[in-house]
Amino acid sequence: MSSEDRLCLALDFGGTKLAAGLVNLDGGTLVTHVRAPTPVGGGAAGSLRTMFQLGDAALQGLAGRPLHGAGVSFGGPVDAATGTVLRSLHVAGWDQVPLASLVSGHFGVVARMDNDANAGALGEWRFGVGRGSRCMAYYTLSTGVGGGIILGGTLFHGATGVAGELGHVIVDRNGPPCPCGNRGCVEALCSGPAIARRAREAVAQSSLPTLLRDVGGGEASFTAATVAAAASQGDAVALAVWREVADDLAVGMGNVVNVLNLDRIVIGGGVAQAGTLLLEPLRAALPRYVFPAAYEPLDVRLSCFGGTSGLYGAAALLL
Amino acid sequence: MSSEDRLCLALDFGGTKLAAGLVNLDGGTLVTHVRAPTPVGGGAAGSLRTMFQLGDAALQGLAGRPLHGAGVSFGGPVDAATGTVLRSLHVAGWDQVPLASLVSGHFGVVARMDNDANAGALGEWRFGVGRGSRCMAYYTLSTGVGGGIILGGTLFHGATGVAGELGHVIVDRNGPPCPCGNRGCVEALCSGPAIARRAREAVAQSSLPTLLRDVGGGEASFTAATVAAAASQGDAVALAVWREVADDLAVGMGNVVNVLNLDRIVIGGGVAQAGTLLLEPLRAALPRYVFPAAYEPLDVRLSCFGGTSGLYGAAALLL
Repeated sequence: MSSEDRLCLALDFGGTKLAAGLVNLDGGTLVTHVRAPTPVGGGAAGSLRTMFQLGDAALQGLAGRPLHGAGVSFGGPVDAATGTVLRSLHVAGWDQVPLASLVSGHFGVVARMDNDANAGALGEWRFGVGRGSRCMAYYTLSTGVGGGIILGGTLFHGATGVAGELGHVIVDRNGPPCPCGNRGCVEALCSGPAIARRAREAVAQSSLPTLLRDVGGGEASFTAATVAAAASQGDAVALAVWREVADDLAVGMGNVVNVLNLDRIVIGGGVAQAGTLLLEPLRAALPRYVFPAAYEPLDVRLSCFGGTSGLYGAAALLL
Repeated sequence: MSSEDRLCLALDFGGTKLAAGLVNLDGGTLVTHVRAPTPVGGGAAGSLRTMFQLGDAALQGLAGRPLHGAGVSFGGPVDAATGTVLRSLHVAGWDQVPLASLVSGHFGVVARMDNDANAGALGEWRFGVGRGSRCMAYYTLSTGVGGGIILGGTLFHGATGVAGELGHVIVDRNGPPCPCGNRGCVEALCSGPAIARRAREAVAQSSLPTLLRDVGGGEASFTAATVAAAASQGDAVALAVWREVADDLAVGMGNVVNVLNLDRIVIGGGVAQAGTLLLEPLRAALPRYVFPAAYEPLDVRLSCFGGTSGLYGAAALLL
């Protein structure tokens, strides 16, 4: 790290976890970070108190150097332009909280905020495997499926700030129900819970031997990680689930690529931990659903940030 | 028209029709226009010769005033940045033709070119029912389904110039085959030929009396206009076809709106002549497929340009 490098505080408010870190904006590195569970029942005030403690701890890493600013990634709908949280689906008391200005007040620096998917997209474009792309989409495959879009080096927010719902692109209007109320959305087919459901259905319908029948806790305990573990041992039923998930994801991504002519897609979130089990069949399927001219510049990659994606994203909001 | 108003030549190269007009860029009016069938078998050279004659005729409307420039709408893939036609699906000999510079050379003014869907989108945004929108999509529903996207007042071309394939957003991956090779694209469900096919299927499957059984020429002669004519007389079978077409179109548009948070959709092309038969069920269906926050700013309108959309679009390329 050069002594000229700008350091910023990065805060990541998740539904189950709070994290704070110090990011070197010029070097693109996470200098230090700390985390804690989101306080159960503490509401917005409890989360904010814990986060300020985490932030104060992370700032020890400054060792006397100046703080350039604070970036905030929030797991829920926000008004990025005013730095206001609109609500949280996980924690009470977040309605209309001016979080950016509260953070700015506590730490004494300028603060920028966006939702986690948008921040994640910007972090990948600025510091991660999205670097160098002109038109990029970021998919976060987790309990839900979120998304963010970078066009020409800036986050695309749409007409009123709610663009990027990549998880609610419908690929099969007669498909399984989605938490959003529709059917056959990407989220209904490719989220962690959707993958677990597909594995349960595959076990029920298949007469093949499968490691999935031996999972401790039985079918009710299935997660995307369970299915990945079985597939990585060559289990045919689990491998078929990943191929089908990847094929549906390819249809959803193809819809976006045919419209936006993307040159990069970055995949993060817990489901991306499946690695090549997801990426290889996805890359194989995409040319079936994307026009040749739009497929040609497209590069699909897995995030390298793992659990620290939100911190890189929060920091990127300052650039 | 003020004497200061800029006048430009607008040229529209279609697969079946060539048109030239004089457009007042400041007043947003089509001063004069002429058209001719695309010469059969004449190749690119024949089309170009006819178009130059049409353009020369349209320029009589200048009456001695200066010509500001020439805009070209081309019905096929182009490289808008270099003004080069890549190919035509209808007429031979268009591969890699530097059309913008040929037009510029013949008429002695600067020339700009884009494909018909992109030009149509820009024409609607600049002169038509797209005025005032921040994020707009233009659908042209015709033999195929094309599209163009305007973000922040400029045409969005994507990473390599091929963005906007709104007709090849998949809404039902198990749906009917599309000319593109996939299944269940918007084009496979909502183009003119798709509507005719759905009407034939509806007639075959329905035991209700329907005017469609009395159409001269029989089922083979069905077009979107046939189905619209029957529906406008209250024919239940034809009305149901339009409702189903509108519902599938709503899913396709919903996919785009959830991703791009559009505030305007403009629908042109021959199928849009169905008017409220299409627009009313479409507007009723959209809230089912679009998130409330993304639906709130959305306004869906029919083009008012009819057959002259290409000329307004060509002219808009100069602004």
